[in-house]
Amino acid sequence: MMNTARQSPVAVVMGSDSDLEVMKSCIDQFRAFEIEPEVRILSAHRTPAAAGEFARTAAERGVKVIIAAAGMAAHLAGALAAQTTRPVIGVPLAAKEGPMGLDALLSTVQMPPGVPVATMAIGRAGAKNAAVFALQILALSDADLAAKLAAFREAQTQTALQKDAALKR
Amino acid sequence: MMNTARQSPVAVVMGSDSDLEVMKSCIDQFRAFEIEPEVRILSAHRTPAAAGEFARTAAERGVKVIIAAAGMAAHLAGALAAQTTRPVIGVPLAAKEGPMGLDALLSTVQMPPGVPVATMAIGRAGAKNAAVFALQILALSDADLAAKLAAFREAQTQTALQKDAALKR
Amino acid sequence: MMNTARQSPVAVVMGSDSDLEVMKSCIDQFRAFEIEPEVRILSAHRTPAAAGEFARTAAERGVKVIIAAAGMAAHLAGALAAQTTRPVIGVPLAAKEGPMGLDALLSTVQMPPGVPVATMAIGRAGAKNAAVFALQILALSDADLAAKLAAFREAQTQTALQKDAALKR
Amino acid sequence: MMNTARQSPVAVVMGSDSDLEVMKSCIDQFRAFEIEPEVRILSAHRTPAAAGEFARTAAERGVKVIIAAAGMAAHLAGALAAQTTRPVIGVPLAAKEGPMGLDALLSTVQMPPGVPVATMAIGRAGAKNAAVFALQILALSDADLAAKLAAFREAQTQTALQKDAALKR
Amino acid sequence: MMNTARQSPVAVVMGSDSDLEVMKSCIDQFRAFEIEPEVRILSAHRTPAAAGEFARTAAERGVKVIIAAAGMAAHLAGALAAQTTRPVIGVPLAAKEGPMGLDALLSTVQMPPGVPVATMAIGRAGAKNAAVFALQILALSDADLAAKLAAFREAQTQTALQKDAALKR
Amino acid sequence: MMNTARQSPVAVVMGSDSDLEVMKSCIDQFRAFEIEPEVRILSAHRTPAAAGEFARTAAERGVKVIIAAAGMAAHLAGALAAQTTRPVIGVPLAAKEGPMGLDALLSTVQMPPGVPVATMAIGRAGAKNAAVFALQILALSDADLAAKLAAFREAQTQTALQKDAALKR
Amino acid sequence: MMNTARQSPVAVVMGSDSDLEVMKSCIDQFRAFEIEPEVRILSAHRTPAAAGEFARTAAERGVKVIIAAAGMAAHLAGALAAQTTRPVIGVPLAAKEGPMGLDALLSTVQMPPGVPVATMAIGRAGAKNAAVFALQILALSDADLAAKLAAFREAQTQTALQKDAALKR
Amino acid sequence: MMNTARQSPVAVVMGSDSDLEVMKSCIDQFRAFEIEPEVRILSAHRTPAAAGEFARTAAERGVKVIIAAAGMAAHLAGALAAQTTRPVIGVPLAAKEGPMGLDALLSTVQMPPGVPVATMAIGRAGAKNAAVFALQILALSDADLAAKLAAFREAQTQTALQKDAALKR
Repeated sequence: MMNTARQSPVAVVMGSDSDLEVMKSCIDQFRAFEIEPEVRILSAHRTPAAAGEFARTAAERGVKVIIAAAGMAAHLAGALAAQTTRPVIGVPLAAKEGPMGLDALLSTVQMPPGVPVATMAIGRAGAKNAAVFALQILALSDADLAAKLAAFREAQTQTALQKDAALKR
Repeated sequence: MMNTARQSPVAVVMGSDSDLEVMKSCIDQFRAFEIEPEVRILSAHRTPAAAGEFARTAAERGVKVIIAAAGMAAHLAGALAAQTTRPVIGVPLAAKEGPMGLDALLSTVQMPPGVPVATMAIGRAGAKNAAVFALQILALSDADLAAKLAAFREAQTQTALQKDAALKR
Repeated sequence: MMNTARQSPVAVVMGSDSDLEVMKSCIDQFRAFEIEPEVRILSAHRTPAAAGEFARTAAERGVKVIIAAAGMAAHLAGALAAQTTRPVIGVPLAAKEGPMGLDALLSTVQMPPGVPVATMAIGRAGAKNAAVFALQILALSDADLAAKLAAFREAQTQTALQKDAALKR
Repeated sequence: MMNTARQSPVAVVMGSDSDLEVMKSCIDQFRAFEIEPEVRILSAHRTPAAAGEFARTAAERGVKVIIAAAGMAAHLAGALAAQTTRPVIGVPLAAKEGPMGLDALLSTVQMPPGVPVATMAIGRAGAKNAAVFALQILALSDADLAAKLAAFREAQTQTALQKDAALKR
Repeated sequence: MMNTARQSPVAVVMGSDSDLEVMKSCIDQFRAFEIEPEVRILSAHRTPAAAGEFARTAAERGVKVIIAAAGMAAHLAGALAAQTTRPVIGVPLAAKEGPMGLDALLSTVQMPPGVPVATMAIGRAGAKNAAVFALQILALSDADLAAKLAAFREAQTQTALQKDAALKR
Repeated sequence: MMNTARQSPVAVVMGSDSDLEVMKSCIDQFRAFEIEPEVRILSAHRTPAAAGEFARTAAERGVKVIIAAAGMAAHLAGALAAQTTRPVIGVPLAAKEGPMGLDALLSTVQMPPGVPVATMAIGRAGAKNAAVFALQILALSDADLAAKLAAFREAQTQTALQKDAALKR
Repeated sequence: MMNTARQSPVAVVMGSDSDLEVMKSCIDQFRAFEIEPEVRILSAHRTPAAAGEFARTAAERGVKVIIAAAGMAAHLAGALAAQTTRPVIGVPLAAKEGPMGLDALLSTVQMPPGVPVATMAIGRAGAKNAAVFALQILALSDADLAAKLAAFREAQTQTALQKDAALKR
Repeated sequence: MMNTARQSPVAVVMGSDSDLEVMKSCIDQFRAFEIEPEVRILSAHRTPAAAGEFARTAAERGVKVIIAAAGMAAHLAGALAAQTTRPVIGVPLAAKEGPMGLDALLSTVQMPPGVPVATMAIGRAGAKNAAVFALQILALSDADLAAKLAAFREAQTQTALQKDAALKR
């Protein structure tokens, strides 16, 4: 089991504390795997120095995977990816106004050659999947986690099958 | 007339040297006003430190207006705007693949509250207009430039009127 | 400090009084900098003569920067820009029906070569940023304003950092 | 038959002489009905005064229907409609760069309440249809034209039916 | 004044009685001009024969302009236009699900060469403007109506100017 | 084997003979199954009476499945579906100008409740798949065809597997 | 009349039990024709084996037409179509976040050559139409059903005509 | 250095051999790191069994990261992700017809909760970045690779800086 007193292997960064409500499904997913992520409020536009510092020092502090969630011209994931070679996963969020997260999706996914951001679905689905994908990466070198992940997927399948079975009755 | 031996009051930054062909209309527009812009290749993703350094020192070096052009997840303008209070004008460029510049447009224009980027049209029209808009800003405190700008607009109008007149004959 | 008894250096024009609610964040941003903007209801379609008159006389009355907000086929910013060489900043607004402000965004930003409109994000974020961008322009020739702007940005950064710090505890 | 020495009842206005190639199908359609349209190059942004003058005097000069074609942030039709109560038909054109005419379509069609623009399809199809629609308006008070229009439609139907018949053989 | 006991010169057709709520602004606009439109529920898909019959007989019954409003794959305006040479004005409506009226807009406006539909804005704005545009057509051969229309536009301008004046105080 | 001297069980209708080039992949797919489709040029807008007649009589003439291909405001499939209870399959085509077939897609697929059109992909892929889908319908009551269809799918799978195998070498 | 004790000729599959509320209009439509569909919860992503098994055995169990409804990256219909030659009808659903069902529409309709999915409108309209289209397929070899379908369509027409008639009074 | 005689830790799967030309930049990127990827042609729709078999056995054969590229309704990445807990990276490709890869982007990225696909940019940029991102994952447990990756990023930065320097001269 992971000792969360030490640096977490995963960081969940978001552009604004108002994003916490959506990103809760990401954080909860990690906690379901007994991993307490480092959670940060960092903005590519309001705190670029802190964001850059965070990204540049992430690897040495032991962060293995970074999740970055932002809305509108969502530059956060790309800005972090520009300053680390750790995998960065982007979660595009829909703002209250504008094109329902398509702006954030395109701003996150359309990265130029050489600096990738692994982009998830818009909003809550993407928030949860960012955690699942990070766990899939960590599980490559952590047999315990791999086993938990297999169990998680199997449980997910069983839940769906039970709903199907319940419907038949 | 402006002495271009000193620092230019305008900088034209682009993410890749392949953008030079489109941004030529921007540079030419400045030259038509006898202003030689500082032209830079800086990338929010490939050279974030240099881009940040450029933006943070722009004001003290005498740069008054910054134009930033980029395609895809076009973060360049926003990344510069995050590190300076000088006006930053963004020009979204269409990449060879993908949604015809809509990705760059949304990545440039949908900036969060507090860090604006003044966004122009996609491609060549926007490249030229970025220069015109920068000149409009500079002309606020430069009567010579204001007069040239008025003449430019008047000439533009006359050219259009002559095309209309030519058509009638 | 600016004497608002005289003509304001900034004008905030909107197409309808129903836009006032969204544009409040623009006006408030100016007031936070002790600038009382001239606020006008002018329509490119319903009051084209008044809008044209406003734009043509803006410079001589002392207006330095014009902000124009409109929804749907948002022509207001472009119509004003066509009649002045003062910088015009456009704020696209989302109407109750239709494509969530994408119509206003494209109608505002896709200006033809020669007549630029500096376009901000859709809605409230753009409304606030229009004021910030106008202040950035004015600050080029107003050291007091430049200092206030630097303080504003620093405060914005500190607020974000404090939210990050609060999260860690 | 119409005497083209006098003012034409229809005017075809376009924002740039580069639009002539696309608008040829509009002009040709009128000529097929022996109507020589007044053709003008007028820009909402480059020649707003001339455009306004044109629109304000159109009715008194005998223009009954105005067709306005433009690309990008296509304000021309709306700008003319704002200054006349004559029916204005808009033709959105696709620019070489950007979202394939969707910008011009939304800028033309999404007019606010009170000032309509009758919008046609993007490009050549819309250019031709603008003429056909104008002819349909004129035919309301011109029995000769109404007869020609009925014949045009019938011929169009017969051509299509013959293509169908040719295919069967 | 128009005698509404006889056939109305305008018909307002909609695909479903649920569209009546949006189209009320169209009908009210006609009534403000003392014209009682013929209002019909006809569907290109559910009652194609009745819709065709309506369109084919519209001219002989005295209908001069037809307004057709529909949502989703909005074929109604095009289906009517295919069977009459009277001007047909289309109003795209947004359905409760799907892309906010963009489907209806494209289905209405993108008519092939030869059979135009004059398309208005999505929803209420378009509903009102359809009536205004129809009045503009009718006013071409009705001096009384032309005068009323000029007064309507002037009143509209005055209302906007008064809102502007009220704001200044 | 099917006797093509009698009425074909499938009809391929297109709005214009210029669509034949794209629809060739549809016709060829039928011929690969030894079915010669009835091919017709019928337009919802140019030949509505002939199109309606075709649809109303299709069932009694022995047509079991109708394929309709059109571009722009693609009403053809919907117009036919409105006049028959035979399954109608729609193929949206991209026009040379405009939004790359998205107009035709939305015009074809977004049918209101009660009158379905089974919509395929834009262009050539959809043209071929319309034939495959029609064959799947016909095969429900034709064991020979069902066997051929199974063989077609198996061959398709084998071709793909061979390409995979070839790559490995 | 169909004996629902035996395998239903139609299956309605959805990706999640939360889709049941929208798909009720599909199921109800079948019940109005006295057909009780097999209703299943199967996911292309959570229960791919069960989904594949369902599709591969559908034909031999007597299923003639499969309806598959899903949201987001809606792969369900395509995944089933890949494993059966029975006609598969896809219903794209709008998720709570994201681009209003356009993701599901494109994921469902843009199938590659060789494996068609017959796509319906987004949401409830498509859910109902999927049932109607399935009934149209089944009616090809079921005269009773064909008669009911004709009656259903006639009733639908009469209801619309009555609404039109009611409006006239 | 990696011994490519053994199973490669990365697999590059594409839906069609016509995708090879775009995916070459992905394969080349791996080769630049002396990793020979397993390259496969597998289709979610044409060879679902082989694709499923590939995914289910990937982990035991030693595949650590899977890259899947497809166009249109791009289900390949999602279909593989459904059958493995290895990280799956999706590359959306633009087809010759249709909405320029937006269909493939939404089909790839909008995965439902529980089964993530890490999505890259449309086309060549995404193809290259998929390899870079896979390398970033592998480098988490491979210090040699991590060093190479750091050198790659540094070289990329230097190349960009040199272009900037070259421009200044």
